[in-house]
Amino acid sequence: MERDGIQAAKLEGEDEVSHLALDIGGSLIKMVYFSSNSICSGDDQKNGFLKDGIDTVNYTVLSGRLHFLKFETTKISECMKFISTKRLQEYGDKDDEASASDKNIIKATGGGAFKFADLFKEKLGIILDKVDEMSCLVAGANFLLKAVHQEAFTYLDGQKDYVQIDHKDLYPYLLVNVGSGVSMIKVDGDNEFERVSGTSVGGGTFWGLGKLLTKCQSFDELLELSRQGNNRVIDMLVGDIYGGMDYSKIGLTSTAIASSFGKAVSENKELEDYRAEDVARSLLRMISNNIGQIAYLNALRFGLKRIFFGGFFIRGHAYTMDTLSVAVNFWSKGEAKALFLRHEGFLGALGAFMSYEKKGFTDITHQFMEQNSSVPKSSFCSEDGSESSTRAHVRDNECIECRVQVRN
Amino acid sequence: MERDGIQAAKLEGEDEVSHLALDIGGSLIKMVYFSSNSICSGDDQKNGFLKDGIDTVNYTVLSGRLHFLKFETTKISECMKFISTKRLQEYGDKDDEASASDKNIIKATGGGAFKFADLFKEKLGIILDKVDEMSCLVAGANFLLKAVHQEAFTYLDGQKDYVQIDHKDLYPYLLVNVGSGVSMIKVDGDNEFERVSGTSVGGGTFWGLGKLLTKCQSFDELLELSRQGNNRVIDMLVGDIYGGMDYSKIGLTSTAIASSFGKAVSENKELEDYRAEDVARSLLRMISNNIGQIAYLNALRFGLKRIFFGGFFIRGHAYTMDTLSVAVNFWSKGEAKALFLRHEGFLGALGAFMSYEKKGFTDITHQFMEQNSSVPKSSFCSEDGSESSTRAHVRDNECIECRVQVRN
Repeated sequence: MERDGIQAAKLEGEDEVSHLALDIGGSLIKMVYFSSNSICSGDDQKNGFLKDGIDTVNYTVLSGRLHFLKFETTKISECMKFISTKRLQEYGDKDDEASASDKNIIKATGGGAFKFADLFKEKLGIILDKVDEMSCLVAGANFLLKAVHQEAFTYLDGQKDYVQIDHKDLYPYLLVNVGSGVSMIKVDGDNEFERVSGTSVGGGTFWGLGKLLTKCQSFDELLELSRQGNNRVIDMLVGDIYGGMDYSKIGLTSTAIASSFGKAVSENKELEDYRAEDVARSLLRMISNNIGQIAYLNALRFGLKRIFFGGFFIRGHAYTMDTLSVAVNFWSKGEAKALFLRHEGFLGALGAFMSYEKKGFTDITHQFMEQNSSVPKSSFCSEDGSESSTRAHVRDNECIECRVQVRN
Repeated sequence: MERDGIQAAKLEGEDEVSHLALDIGGSLIKMVYFSSNSICSGDDQKNGFLKDGIDTVNYTVLSGRLHFLKFETTKISECMKFISTKRLQEYGDKDDEASASDKNIIKATGGGAFKFADLFKEKLGIILDKVDEMSCLVAGANFLLKAVHQEAFTYLDGQKDYVQIDHKDLYPYLLVNVGSGVSMIKVDGDNEFERVSGTSVGGGTFWGLGKLLTKCQSFDELLELSRQGNNRVIDMLVGDIYGGMDYSKIGLTSTAIASSFGKAVSENKELEDYRAEDVARSLLRMISNNIGQIAYLNALRFGLKRIFFGGFFIRGHAYTMDTLSVAVNFWSKGEAKALFLRHEGFLGALGAFMSYEKKGFTDITHQFMEQNSSVPKSSFCSEDGSESSTRAHVRDNECIECRVQVRN
């Protein structure tokens, strides 16, 4: 059997491209694919990047890059055009035993894998091989936490600290994926998980409500606005009710938010009278805090001490992470910890990517080792230098150097 | 010692007015006071309204009315004018042993009892005797659940069912008071309680955000709008992501909300392009659902089966109650139950009112028995006949017939 996708022809002047996987969500399409630029010998095991327990006898190692891209779901035609232009569809998961029309198969997850299946078939002749969304999120998170160096970090009071994950002590944990909506998944092992909760107040709420309230044209613009805002202008604080005093008996300081957007009740102002920055800030605070609280309550239910936050809502944004961390810390009285993932937005797409190995008609084990030396630090920084320390997440159209181990 | 407040002089043509109590919140001032129109003899015990365990020897029974009023906190001058015009301040809790300037003492709770203390002193010569907010909410709820007939009810699918509360099986329960913000209190007995959680996403958020989004001028107007709206216009449903399909593997139907306001992300519309009714509906649904979920998670923590919802956010509104009930039912898989209180908005004010008996310099035990026969049914109905069945809550400027037992 041919090792489909890996044996893809190398185009002139281009890398070999393979294993395209999609996560088509309500708001965003996330794409992951691998491009190899050289085929190394099995001796590469001596380089020490192979993990224990992996068959190191019969394999080929491909050195290359893992690419991360995103598109807005409403602009799915751009995504399809990108695939078409790059001729990526030829390097998906081709099953020679299938009929000619079934040749181009791409792993896809998220609701859009169902919704747009006919469109992909019709326009590009591509079959979307649907992979369960929750399974992909978990597979993606487990992969990142085990295989990628400096993937997880805490963020509090502007301080980012990478966390070394002990593989033997990874499970159980709570995975909170904040996409358009929010899924909360208790993860107990490889492919052992349960979706225990969720909330409809997520990234789509921030962006949707934010767009209506501020006329912002993009999620990133809204985040940037929020960075310059002051939530105390619109939020009703405990001190606003208690005449500047704390309600110390129940542990609420005067600066705690009593009612999000509550000040708008009593002020004789219309939407236009508020600065968009302040509105965006209150909205971000309300949603982040709410997600942090519900996440904590679910972690508590199952005695989980670590909560990993993923999804494209976060985007390495300092205030979002800080609010989530503070919420988890406040409600758990320091018992639980919020952690973030550098590849936060791509859990589902990575999980779909990983699923190529499971299908049987390929026989591939991926084994990645990020080549830190070859990844310039700047590639994890934002264009806005002022907040580069917090922009640890992988950016759109980013790629990381990695190697793929392929069983022969 | 004089039984202050009860011995208040009867004004010509007016009832005796006593025991004014205030709950001054971030958005609303709630007022409760008693007016008696006759003094009955101790023989009234034969009428059977006195409960077991109450000293029935030395008492006087006052027959009269319990009044419920509310004012917007921003219009506190109206509240003060009302008190002043009614000369209610003379019938508060007067301590003859105090100095002349301390004579007019009124029980008050909520943050405004602190914030506006100087204003009451300066303008009306009234001392606000501050009573803890959480204590008052609990005292008010316990009182209503024990003493008032047909106070608690369930509401699901348009069906209201009164619940008989077994006094011996009342505790523990979760009290969720939805004011501007939300407090969640585990109640274990008379004055035995702990505030275990809360959220800033409450009534102030609904009204504040709703005002900004719809230009509504009042909370009730916003509620009325929401009644005519369709949340599916702006909310992103599971089916919107999954191409009309359920995500049945995790129990989400196609009509479940995946992302509140999420559809606004992908549509090329501005705020003005949406109907205010639909915006109000999505907002109400988002907030009610969120409160229901956080309430359930806290009930689960402590193994509480009954969640009583109070606070002025609810206002006997069918959709609010229905959403809260569905949320509690959905998340608890039917294990926990949402219950509502007819005097929902007045828990704190009633608690402050009840606290008159505790102060020592009065010696009053209140014992109420609602005279159902003398309360016209219509007094619990809304002006809008179409929803009268759901408007079980006590309305502004409402009063109920009751009796007060006063120890001699």
